[in-house]
Parts: sequence; structure tokens; C-alpha cells
Amino acid sequence: MTTETAPEAGATAPDAYAPTDRTVPSRSRERARYDRATVHAILDQAYVCHLGFVRDGAPVVLPTLFARVGDALYLHGSTGSRPLLAAGRTDPGLPVCVTVTHVDGLVLARSAFHHSLNYRSVMVHGTAHQVTDEAECRTALNALVDHVVPGRSADSRPADARELAATAVIRLDLTEVCAKLRTGGPNDDPEDLDLPYWSGVVPVAPAYGTPVPAADLAPGTAVPDYLAAL
Amino acid sequence: MTTETAPEAGATAPDAYAPTDRTVPSRSRERARYDRATVHAILDQAYVCHLGFVRDGAPVVLPTLFARVGDALYLHGSTGSRPLLAAGRTDPGLPVCVTVTHVDGLVLARSAFHHSLNYRSVMVHGTAHQVTDEAECRTALNALVDHVVPGRSADSRPADARELAATAVIRLDLTEVCAKLRTGGPNDDPEDLDLPYWSGVVPVAPAYGTPVPAADLAPGTAVPDYLAAL
Repeated sequence: MTTETAPEAGATAPDAYAPTDRTVPSRSRERARYDRATVHAILDQAYVCHLGFVRDGAPVVLPTLFARVGDALYLHGSTGSRPLLAAGRTDPGLPVCVTVTHVDGLVLARSAFHHSLNYRSVMVHGTAHQVTDEAECRTALNALVDHVVPGRSADSRPADARELAATAVIRLDLTEVCAKLRTGGPNDDPEDLDLPYWSGVVPVAPAYGTPVPAADLAPGTAVPDYLAAL
Repeated sequence: MTTETAPEAGATAPDAYAPTDRTVPSRSRERARYDRATVHAILDQAYVCHLGFVRDGAPVVLPTLFARVGDALYLHGSTGSRPLLAAGRTDPGLPVCVTVTHVDGLVLARSAFHHSLNYRSVMVHGTAHQVTDEAECRTALNALVDHVVPGRSADSRPADARELAATAVIRLDLTEVCAKLRTGGPNDDPEDLDLPYWSGVVPVAPAYGTPVPAADLAPGTAVPDYLAAL
């Protein structure tokens, strides 16, 4: 991927996360954004985050569901899963890096070198802690369901005591955060503009198919309105 | 996310990667796959991987372009980027974890607890090394362009000496590899089947928009056939 001139620099606004050594990119700094609105929108549109942690000195990157509530990310899993165990065991928590990425377009330049992707990503550095408060656990689990489909948690059976006990939730506060994005067309070198190759962008976006009812769903059960909004 | 009974166990086939301690999941083992065909298909369909490495003792997860050539993954970036510098500096290479994930469906169960995603992911553990051989570098760069759009490297200007010198390529051999996937409908508990909530799966898949020509493209330049195949 290559650099380009962005319309605005990655400056901090009043409602923005403060940059740190870890959240200022070593290159393509003009692609960095720190404002909450941009960061939150990128997070909220993604179904899966990639959770990085260190096990026995080596990196591990695990795809997992997540949800944002204000300035916190919640991730959950079985109480037996490795990172969740580690977050609970380790005092003071588990150092993690959580990254979310959307691919928005394939950028085709005249030169192989300037091929790229349009994308939006968020990277969060911090320490994850297990949530032990039951009310906060419930808030997080509802947010996880509503993150999959907004409005769904109110239209399903809430977790019972046994299910709550089997689920571990970890929280990562959003403090050391950076969004990075690329938009726009290819950036060919001036001397390449007359080459006979097509150049431009192929947009990519997720599309939803027709909902498929469960095999054991009672015939005639209506598809809820909140699915039509997807 | 919850466990379910899968149609086949995650056994190794003749043309499969051998499981290791790191590639046998601690839970949902029935979702694991080790055969090359499954692993390669998941890798080849993804535009972005999430590259995990350790910096100053803390995890970093970086989204980046990649391509597969046989049993090797190639990643590239500026010669000034941090992980690429580290892969070159560190003898014997940079320990990494590379993960690729596709979200295929939103799984809505009657119970909040059994909500899930259908997904396909691949996790690769290993040590990345900088590629120093020029022919291998060129093969990797062509593969990276063809990974974005198959057939494109032959229809663009190849990298020149200056561009080659500015690009660092790292290789990660596919040896310690595992795919993990969930398919099918929700797995509600028997006692929940009569609850009045819709349950089923909403399919999700990437969709391509109409190619947008570069602002400086000569009018009348035809959209290439390989884009119509997307």
C-alpha cells in the first residue's frame, strides 16, 4: 500500500483520544484519526474484532465478537477460553491489542507499486480486565447481542444464572486508540498517467441475504422488523 | 458464541497440516480444520490479514495486505515499517501470528446466550523472515497484486528498481496452521423451542460495486474483463 496526501491531518479535536507513542503510526500519518465519532463508527459497524495477546512470549490473534458501550469494549467467551482465563488470572489484567478493519475498495493503479485498498481500521491498545459485577456483565451481554442486530436483545430470552456463570466477559477501556483510513482513487506517478492500463477503485461492502429461518422454527413466525433494517 | 455438534471432527487428512499444541483450539474443537484445501480457500478469499507481533513486550495487531504462494504467505510494506524492520533485524526472524476471518452470517437464537456468527477463519503461527532474493520479491509482489484482483499483475506496470528497493517483503511459511469455522443454524436449547422469537441466520457476504474510474483516466478506457469476473 502506498501513501497519499489526505485532505486533513490527523490532528486531535476536543472530543478526541489523545495520541500516544503507540497510536501515532510510523508511516502514512495523514491517514490517522483520533476523534471519537470516527473511531466509534468504525468499531460499531464491525462484527468481529481481532484480539491480540501474548502467550508464552509469542503473539496470538483471535477473531471474536465484541461490542462497544461508551468508551469501553466488551468481549466475551467461555470461562474456559485462554485469553479470558488469562485476563482473570493475571493481576493487573491482560495486555491486549484489539483491531477492527473494514475493506471499502480495491484500488487499481497503473503501476503495480501503487495498488492499494481503501479501508477503515481502529487499533486499541490497553489492558483487558474480567468483568465481575453482574449488572455490568448483563449490560455487556445485551450489548453483544445488539451489536449483532440492533434491537435483538429485547426480542430474545435473556441469559439465566447458569448461562451467566458459564460466560466470561472482559472489558478494554478506550483510551489508547487510533483510527486509520484510506479513501479516494489511485495515486499514480505523473509519468505513468499515459500508460494504457485502466485505473480506479472497485467498491466493496457487506451485503445481507434473505434471512434463513431455523429448521425448528414454527411455520409462519414473522421475520422481525429490525432485520428488514439491515 | 456457543458450541455445536459439527458434521465431522477436525481430523487430519493426508494433505493436511499437522496439528500442534498451538493449533488445537482449547474449545469448540469440532470447528477446527487442518486440510490444505479448506485453509487455502479461506486465505485466498480475504483481502486483509491481521498480523500480530510483540513490541516492547506488548501485542500489536496490524491489518495488512497479503498473498499466498503455495505454502507461504507474503506480506509487504515500506522498508520503514516497524514489523518489517523487526523481521529483518531480528535473527532468526520475527515471531508472528497471522489471522484471516470471514463473517458469513448472523446467527439469531431464541436465547441471547446462543447468538453467534457463522464464520471461517485461519490462524497461522510462525516466524516471519524478510525476503532478500530479488526474484522471490518479484514473485511475491505480483502475487500481492493478483491477490487484490486475479490477472491484474499482467495488466499494470511492474515495479522498477527504485520501487523494489523501497518495498520490504516478509515471508511466513504455512506449517503451524488451523482453520476454524461455524456453519448452519442456531442451536437453541430444547426447552427454548416454543419461545415466540424468530430464530435463524442472516447471510452476509461482500458485494462489489460498479468500478469507479480514476479522475485522471483517459475517457473511453475500457473496464477490463477481469473486473467483470468479481
